[in-house]
Amino acid sequence: MRFVVIGGDAAGMSAASRARRLYPDLEITVLEQGHDVSYSACSMPYNIADPDTPMDDLVVRTAEEFIEKHHIHLLTGHEITAIHPDKKQVTGRTLQGDPVVFAYDKLLIATGAVPTLPDLPGKDRLMPLKQLEHGRRIKDVIRKNKVKNAVILGMGYIALEMCEALTELGIHVTMVKPGPRLLPWLPEKIAQIIQTHLIEKQITLHMGTHIQRIEPAGTGSTIVCDTMNLDADLAIGATGVAPCSGLAKNAGLTLGVSNAIQVDPYLRTSNPDIFAAGDCGDAIHVVTGKPVWIPLALRANRAGWAVADNLFKDSNALQGVAGTAVFKVFDLAVARTGLTFFEAKNAGFDPVENQITSLSRARWQPGAAKIHVNMVGDRRSGRLLGAQITGTDGVAHRINAVAVALHATMSVADFIQTDLAYAPPFSPTWDPMLTAAIQLGKKL
Amino acid sequence: MRFVVIGGDAAGMSAASRARRLYPDLEITVLEQGHDVSYSACSMPYNIADPDTPMDDLVVRTAEEFIEKHHIHLLTGHEITAIHPDKKQVTGRTLQGDPVVFAYDKLLIATGAVPTLPDLPGKDRLMPLKQLEHGRRIKDVIRKNKVKNAVILGMGYIALEMCEALTELGIHVTMVKPGPRLLPWLPEKIAQIIQTHLIEKQITLHMGTHIQRIEPAGTGSTIVCDTMNLDADLAIGATGVAPCSGLAKNAGLTLGVSNAIQVDPYLRTSNPDIFAAGDCGDAIHVVTGKPVWIPLALRANRAGWAVADNLFKDSNALQGVAGTAVFKVFDLAVARTGLTFFEAKNAGFDPVENQITSLSRARWQPGAAKIHVNMVGDRRSGRLLGAQITGTDGVAHRINAVAVALHATMSVADFIQTDLAYAPPFSPTWDPMLTAAIQLGKKL
Repeated sequence: MRFVVIGGDAAGMSAASRARRLYPDLEITVLEQGHDVSYSACSMPYNIADPDTPMDDLVVRTAEEFIEKHHIHLLTGHEITAIHPDKKQVTGRTLQGDPVVFAYDKLLIATGAVPTLPDLPGKDRLMPLKQLEHGRRIKDVIRKNKVKNAVILGMGYIALEMCEALTELGIHVTMVKPGPRLLPWLPEKIAQIIQTHLIEKQITLHMGTHIQRIEPAGTGSTIVCDTMNLDADLAIGATGVAPCSGLAKNAGLTLGVSNAIQVDPYLRTSNPDIFAAGDCGDAIHVVTGKPVWIPLALRANRAGWAVADNLFKDSNALQGVAGTAVFKVFDLAVARTGLTFFEAKNAGFDPVENQITSLSRARWQPGAAKIHVNMVGDRRSGRLLGAQITGTDGVAHRINAVAVALHATMSVADFIQTDLAYAPPFSPTWDPMLTAAIQLGKKL
Repeated sequence: MRFVVIGGDAAGMSAASRARRLYPDLEITVLEQGHDVSYSACSMPYNIADPDTPMDDLVVRTAEEFIEKHHIHLLTGHEITAIHPDKKQVTGRTLQGDPVVFAYDKLLIATGAVPTLPDLPGKDRLMPLKQLEHGRRIKDVIRKNKVKNAVILGMGYIALEMCEALTELGIHVTMVKPGPRLLPWLPEKIAQIIQTHLIEKQITLHMGTHIQRIEPAGTGSTIVCDTMNLDADLAIGATGVAPCSGLAKNAGLTLGVSNAIQVDPYLRTSNPDIFAAGDCGDAIHVVTGKPVWIPLALRANRAGWAVADNLFKDSNALQGVAGTAVFKVFDLAVARTGLTFFEAKNAGFDPVENQITSLSRARWQPGAAKIHVNMVGDRRSGRLLGAQITGTDGVAHRINAVAVALHATMSVADFIQTDLAYAPPFSPTWDPMLTAAIQLGKKL
């Protein structure tokens, strides 16, 4: 039996490793178009902030390890250009241009996502940050060009993490986006806290600014906007990602929401011998019960793992994602799970939201800091739908209590009753998540 | 209508305050035998560590505030010695010895818990730490007697918190207990981590040591043990607490587990006009469904609040407690929720436990530290039963994800599927709670 995996990152290598553990005799081939497999993409901004640590430190396991220790046929520099479900083959080429053909019994598409750069003249001058190779390039430019000014197009997770990393290197950062608001999915008050924090950290923000083109300027670029020109020793494009689903589409597989590859709870595509996992595939949202495309690392690892479990029998049905995410921007952490007010409205709920500000610890404790919580519930059913938090202390893990409640389809009233940990160095008597739920409960 | 509350701490004052908000015309009387009401008892060890902050800073609201702002008849220095359910009266005396009688329509017993000191000759020389007055006395002794050596009898939460506080003041601490193990409810490996940490912090531990008597020695004491004598400028008794249920018992009310006052989900005792809330009453454990006595601050506040809701109609049924608790001992946090292996066994489950050691953050991140998780599940049903954690980073709030899962009667398999937050500065891709659940799942 031949198991072929297209893509050697989180989902692909999780699937290959677990398949090896489960099936010692399985013939496993992983085809990766780049040179790197199994690295911590999410750690790249932190590595960029640290000139003394090579980017290659983020490699979790090397290709050699997979090949020699796990007996996986891992072929890097192999780009797959077509899937032929009728012949159960994939075809493509090596970096040298030689054609390649691989036959499979079971196939996993784990092609991930690609950065979507705005379609502007000179967009090739924008450096994305998705693959390890992108990270190496950005680090090289910083080192060689003595970068003083960076311009980041976009203001999402990656943009904000890069903004902190570059500032730590003494680089002044300007962020630009055409939209009118920072993190528009967050309640305005919480987004404003983050915006104020960025400005305190000397970040220049240009919202509502349309970029016309990117021109060369010495070793750097000039970002030509409608109202100004921005000099950039380094120009980063962090304007979002899209699922890498072209191969699947051309093979006649069904695409779903956001053009991600549609999968069932067993990670099977519309072809029963072809699985998809990771950032190229969709997932069921545990709150709406509907497909969503939320490319995040935990899901990619979990889905890859589940593919191996389900290769020959349906044994690991994934329940879905709550969209739990956290990121750090300077001293603030920002976390979310479940639905925002507008997402809930669009999903057909009758949402009610409420914001509270509490303390992260008992007020006498050193380190006690404000924590801002927005919580969303459904007026009709009383169900808890989601939460968004920011603060400088005790944010990241607090969101998980709500995430678990969403998986359990808990009501706001039931969440209010949960017995959360209290000790003065760690929390007020009523954890901020409980205070948020109590106040939301009054509005429901 | 007259609502009388015996006891002016967390549960009593929560009930009185909320009753005032709900019923502006209700006649509310709170009878407190001491002088202090509404203070953060749990913060006392941290206040003791800080000589510059008076103990009275821990007062959340003063008696005057309740009286003037909330129009509550709050009488301090009033000790109630008997409840007469037939006459719907309580009787007692003032500090001056004058007899007092109060008639009630609805009564709340919120008498809390009392320290249980071992019945030894000289036990009056041991200083407990339960009420604010105890905290003031300990602080006075430290200041006046230039304390260099302290001996703490007991090694529970309070003892360990005091051990840290005294060490911060430059006082050498010796801890003594007759039992053979530190924190015997914890798995041995986790208890051993805490024991090693205490020893690194220069704490002297005497386990298996029986105390015979406490003798005066200068301004301090000598703790006479079976194998040695310990000099103590300060001798603290932290050997546990017991519910203050004598009044209830003498009034014919039903006591339950650990002699706590038995209450229903509406906090009613066996007499429908008498409620009990806080450390004097029991609660239903959400995992076992059976009554337990776990005296903790959040439950006390929540129960007091619910009593007000339920005074005249059954409107707030408490679902119970998961026994979630956290405490800090030097650099370590120790957290638990639900059942330990032995508690699960005693409750009739077929428990399986597993311990893992993971990292609190991605391994490249500054601050990443070991986190040790023990998780308990039921072999028969697959249900998640509890967890215990220790570590120096990211422990306290992580327990809450499990606590919520216990409230939702989640299986280990379902918990494995939860979408917990990941970003390198806050967590590995698989949160340690997920790793613990996955490894436990393999044993089930």
